[in-house]
Amino acid sequence: MENQGFRKNLINIEPYVAGEQPKNDNIIKLNANENAYPPSPEVQKAISGFDAAKLRLYPDFSGEPLKSTLAEYYGLKPAQVFVGNGSDDVLAAAFRAFFNSDMPILYPDVTYSFYPVWCDILRIPYKTIPLKEDFTIDVNDYAQPNGGIIFPNPNAPTSIALEKSEIVKLLDANRDVVVVIDETYIDFGGESCVDLLDKYDNLVLTRTFSKSRSLAGMRLGFAMASEELISYMNAVKDSYNSYPVDAVAIAAGVSAVNDDKYFKDTLAKVISTRERLAKALEDMGFTVAKSAANFLFAEHNKFTAQEIFNFLRDKGIFVRYFNKPRIDNRLRITVGTDEQTDKMISALKELIG
Amino acid sequence: MENQGFRKNLINIEPYVAGEQPKNDNIIKLNANENAYPPSPEVQKAISGFDAAKLRLYPDFSGEPLKSTLAEYYGLKPAQVFVGNGSDDVLAAAFRAFFNSDMPILYPDVTYSFYPVWCDILRIPYKTIPLKEDFTIDVNDYAQPNGGIIFPNPNAPTSIALEKSEIVKLLDANRDVVVVIDETYIDFGGESCVDLLDKYDNLVLTRTFSKSRSLAGMRLGFAMASEELISYMNAVKDSYNSYPVDAVAIAAGVSAVNDDKYFKDTLAKVISTRERLAKALEDMGFTVAKSAANFLFAEHNKFTAQEIFNFLRDKGIFVRYFNKPRIDNRLRITVGTDEQTDKMISALKELIG
Repeated sequence: MENQGFRKNLINIEPYVAGEQPKNDNIIKLNANENAYPPSPEVQKAISGFDAAKLRLYPDFSGEPLKSTLAEYYGLKPAQVFVGNGSDDVLAAAFRAFFNSDMPILYPDVTYSFYPVWCDILRIPYKTIPLKEDFTIDVNDYAQPNGGIIFPNPNAPTSIALEKSEIVKLLDANRDVVVVIDETYIDFGGESCVDLLDKYDNLVLTRTFSKSRSLAGMRLGFAMASEELISYMNAVKDSYNSYPVDAVAIAAGVSAVNDDKYFKDTLAKVISTRERLAKALEDMGFTVAKSAANFLFAEHNKFTAQEIFNFLRDKGIFVRYFNKPRIDNRLRITVGTDEQTDKMISALKELIG
Repeated sequence: MENQGFRKNLINIEPYVAGEQPKNDNIIKLNANENAYPPSPEVQKAISGFDAAKLRLYPDFSGEPLKSTLAEYYGLKPAQVFVGNGSDDVLAAAFRAFFNSDMPILYPDVTYSFYPVWCDILRIPYKTIPLKEDFTIDVNDYAQPNGGIIFPNPNAPTSIALEKSEIVKLLDANRDVVVVIDETYIDFGGESCVDLLDKYDNLVLTRTFSKSRSLAGMRLGFAMASEELISYMNAVKDSYNSYPVDAVAIAAGVSAVNDDKYFKDTLAKVISTRERLAKALEDMGFTVAKSAANFLFAEHNKFTAQEIFNFLRDKGIFVRYFNKPRIDNRLRITVGTDEQTDKMISALKELIG
């Protein structure tokens, strides 16, 4: 073989491509499922009042006191919570901790696009299970030999939630593997499986502060599971990057969780705007999936998704278009403020008439 | 084989054990090589003045504007800088990006204890090269077939720096593999290899804000290399956790780099105290390695390291003791403030007389 020098040892991977992040302040950014509203005023207070002198020391390696605050909020023990640097960090730790079988893990064919990326980089065999025609999950399809299961609830980019009774069926048929449910969007209308953690010691739930708690810029995610499974996530963390959550992020997270009224008021506003937008889109000829998230998944009966995407982009309104099988005529539209929503509806009327 | 249920798929790893992190505010904590002084007042201003409303959006995925600020400071292009969630995150990305050979990577037998942990978890073959009797690196020992080289300069826990002329020899003998130099402690007295990046396209330097910039609690590290090598680190990041550095950390990092006077004044204070402490220890019968870091590596001619460690611990003074071959009679002592240093010297005098 030819001597390629040091290049022969470089990793061979296909990088994940994140959604477009336009910089212009005048644009309407509805393409990354960020929250329409800022975080709680308590978060501003926590950051502004943070004593920077404390930063000379390492933060708590397990994310305390955020871990205990989350445990109390969800009725769990602190040792049942794992805190990480965004839910991607948490999910990556879960893939490494729990998906170590020669059997393929299972996840939907239409889902979060990072799952195959982690499987490739971590050499985890996987098999995708097609969603039904209406983009819902049929839990019976997961009753087959596998090395683990992961899916988001609600699913992304479909926005559709799976009923808890269906999840129980899936869990009962899969007691021999770890089942990870990615509850990134659960606060916007799905039924959380937190209360199933007592019964299913093979269940892991992952969460983020990026969506319902308006803290995408702070990089905070967490997982909830049995103490045993969380101990494996900690072992993975401690073998890779021991202190993933900084001291300011810990303080911001605690203050966000403690302001439950702001949290619930913000969720109510997003949900109300989502329902108004869904109706307006349907009135214009869109088919809109029943959303339990802070975004809509919509297809028009006349204009292609690509046409609508380009039209809106030219108007400075950014939504998400996926050039992928099954969903290449659908748009994923983040629910913005009422003002942003009105501007988008007006723009669409211009195109659609 | 017996059916172990889901436990059969759990990862099998030996967790890294971090240094003790005592919580009591009254103790003197000299066991984690944290900076004796707080970060620049500009960091406090950046944090206190941070507009939390911005946190609803994702941060820049490449850590801008911190990346450009660092590039300008070190005379590089922004594309030659990689910013991560602490230098452990940066080092882990480097191990994944660059150490993909069937040949073993080489590193010193006495060095940062995370290297074998990453090798194990990432299944990288490695071979340790013994330091000389005086704990220095002999670069001739690295002129052998290998899959990559990594060492800290100054080395830890020895505190000893390698001369740049020796590093050039090592680089010249190893043009076919990636050489990573972990410059965690370089600001305290070693010669950085930043100016060698122009000549050696197989050289990677890693850095942290945790030591010389007093920001251990903020989780900021970075790497500097050719644009090509940095692009591989970005590919690794984008295949695992795309947004590792939060928006507040980015702002804090920029303000720390921009206050160069504070940075240099703080370094001068730490170095001055280090020299005073080294002399005091030598006067008490310690052998102290010539330190280019913010810590000392010392052995007493009468008392064992374990005895001294326990004695100091009982007095509320925490230093680091490693129960490991070759170094189990040495202590790693972080350079504290002058007041902390005086208290430790007094305590040691009590024991040693």
